[in-house]
Amino acid sequence: MGGDHAPHEIVAGAVHAVRERGLRVVLVGSPRVLYEALADHDATKEVPIVRAEEALSMDEGALASLRRPRSSIAIACHLVRRGDACAVVSAGSTAGIVATGRLRLKGQPGVLRPAIAVALPTRPTPALLVDAGANAEAKPEMLVQFAHLGAAYAELAHGITAPKVGLLTIGSEAEKGNKLVRRAHELLQSSPGIEFAGNVEGYDLLSGKVDVITTDGFTGNVALKTMEGAVRYAFSELREAIEESKLARLGAAMQRSRIRDLRRRLDAEAHGGAVLLGLNGTVVIAHGATRAPGISAACALATDLSAAEIVTAIGERIAASGRSHRLW
Amino acid sequence: MGGDHAPHEIVAGAVHAVRERGLRVVLVGSPRVLYEALADHDATKEVPIVRAEEALSMDEGALASLRRPRSSIAIACHLVRRGDACAVVSAGSTAGIVATGRLRLKGQPGVLRPAIAVALPTRPTPALLVDAGANAEAKPEMLVQFAHLGAAYAELAHGITAPKVGLLTIGSEAEKGNKLVRRAHELLQSSPGIEFAGNVEGYDLLSGKVDVITTDGFTGNVALKTMEGAVRYAFSELREAIEESKLARLGAAMQRSRIRDLRRRLDAEAHGGAVLLGLNGTVVIAHGATRAPGISAACALATDLSAAEIVTAIGERIAASGRSHRLW
Repeated sequence: MGGDHAPHEIVAGAVHAVRERGLRVVLVGSPRVLYEALADHDATKEVPIVRAEEALSMDEGALASLRRPRSSIAIACHLVRRGDACAVVSAGSTAGIVATGRLRLKGQPGVLRPAIAVALPTRPTPALLVDAGANAEAKPEMLVQFAHLGAAYAELAHGITAPKVGLLTIGSEAEKGNKLVRRAHELLQSSPGIEFAGNVEGYDLLSGKVDVITTDGFTGNVALKTMEGAVRYAFSELREAIEESKLARLGAAMQRSRIRDLRRRLDAEAHGGAVLLGLNGTVVIAHGATRAPGISAACALATDLSAAEIVTAIGERIAASGRSHRLW
Repeated sequence: MGGDHAPHEIVAGAVHAVRERGLRVVLVGSPRVLYEALADHDATKEVPIVRAEEALSMDEGALASLRRPRSSIAIACHLVRRGDACAVVSAGSTAGIVATGRLRLKGQPGVLRPAIAVALPTRPTPALLVDAGANAEAKPEMLVQFAHLGAAYAELAHGITAPKVGLLTIGSEAEKGNKLVRRAHELLQSSPGIEFAGNVEGYDLLSGKVDVITTDGFTGNVALKTMEGAVRYAFSELREAIEESKLARLGAAMQRSRIRDLRRRLDAEAHGGAVLLGLNGTVVIAHGATRAPGISAACALATDLSAAEIVTAIGERIAASGRSHRLW
């Protein structure tokens, strides 16, 4: 029920995931609304519906999750809690999803705070930005855990062994940055199980220098949105520059398909959205503007992560880091 | 003496500023080195040299400014202090420039902390990001002052009356963000002399939604470098996409000049660099990689800001805001 294009694009994405990817998808929300949307695809028999009479609106934040125990996101989390589903996918309000996830699925043992991981379009493998917005305030110990959450994701989803972890700050020297990152730097240097590559700067989000970038949710969210805005800006400026010239327009016509491919690759949708890590269950948060292809990709990502047992992998990492800490 | 391409590109930029812009430039540094560089342009008679035997290296940070009272940046600040120069331009280590500027020029009365303002390539007028990295830690009151510093700059340099100020955070609602920005939001709403447009997000750095974006130096620096990295990334990906196809290459040839123009406009250099605001004197910090054209532009920016008496304008704003605060 969540997302700028709900229910139709969400339902279309679910139908695509079922028909084209062979995934098993359950829709959670208003039966009438979802049934009608499924009917548009003659898919009423292919995709089961679980009733949820309420839904969080996009502008509802964290508190709504407490006010609405029967919201579609709450019910979806409940299905995972009960073992009737392996993961949740939502394009609803991020704050609402995070708060509901924490309330219904609970954080994994030893995890201080769940965090949002977003895959950035670096090559050959994506770089993971953690936390991309779940925790506006963070403690140094949390940044170490975010590194573990991201490393587990990078190992399972991107097949990277011993993922390189960078700490996002404003200079490469250890003493650069604010109190939070200076202390986090010390902790990361002495964290078993983390391949710490040192400080990274804003430039490095897309440079492919590291596999995981750990940061607090405030800095991470500002950086992520700045990146998206800058890429969009560069392309729109380019389009304008091209349209100013007839010759250039002709040239552009010749490369239109190339540019379309490129834009698609840079498009966050193609990466299936953000993942809320550290809960007793997998939750994929699709961008609010996501359309059917992105929802289908998010369903695939959710299935892959849960099949790879990312929750178990994170649990083991956190437990091991906890033990190593107690040794001191 | 500072910058990746010192002394030759710096000297070439100074010569350009003198010959093409009719500015009066004094070079501060090693007389022998600078004289030789000037000789390459037959400019030894056109650009005076002030002796400074020492210089901060690019990797020297804040402490170096204390260790080196005779560094070129320290002497340059001293010239402004004495009234022998109206402004300082340097492409040296930012940390070194900020520390030396605070030490030699001192902060203006009532200014809690000097801050770095960077002009972003929005249109029709640039948007100013303040603080872009001078203060890794900030208090809410500082963010209000950064807004005043940026507003004074926008009024004088960009001719904007009542510049719109945005607070950089992770959501448009007032309650979004961390403690720092939530408190800053309250203060900005009740700050006379500031046209507060509310919260802005990373997307808005280049959207032209506001004229001034206030943030702490940590977030601002991460956002700035993320933006630069993302724009560079988009262009390099585009180049690759184009080179993969012969037809597209032909098309690209047709638009090469357009793309070159665009890149130049997006290039930070064209904007003459960052400005350190809040000191008893104007200090322009050119990017370390700046070459002659950027240095020349930085000299023009420094001249314009000092001719517009930005120090006085900031002093009046801060004094007025101080008075209004005392009224409560």
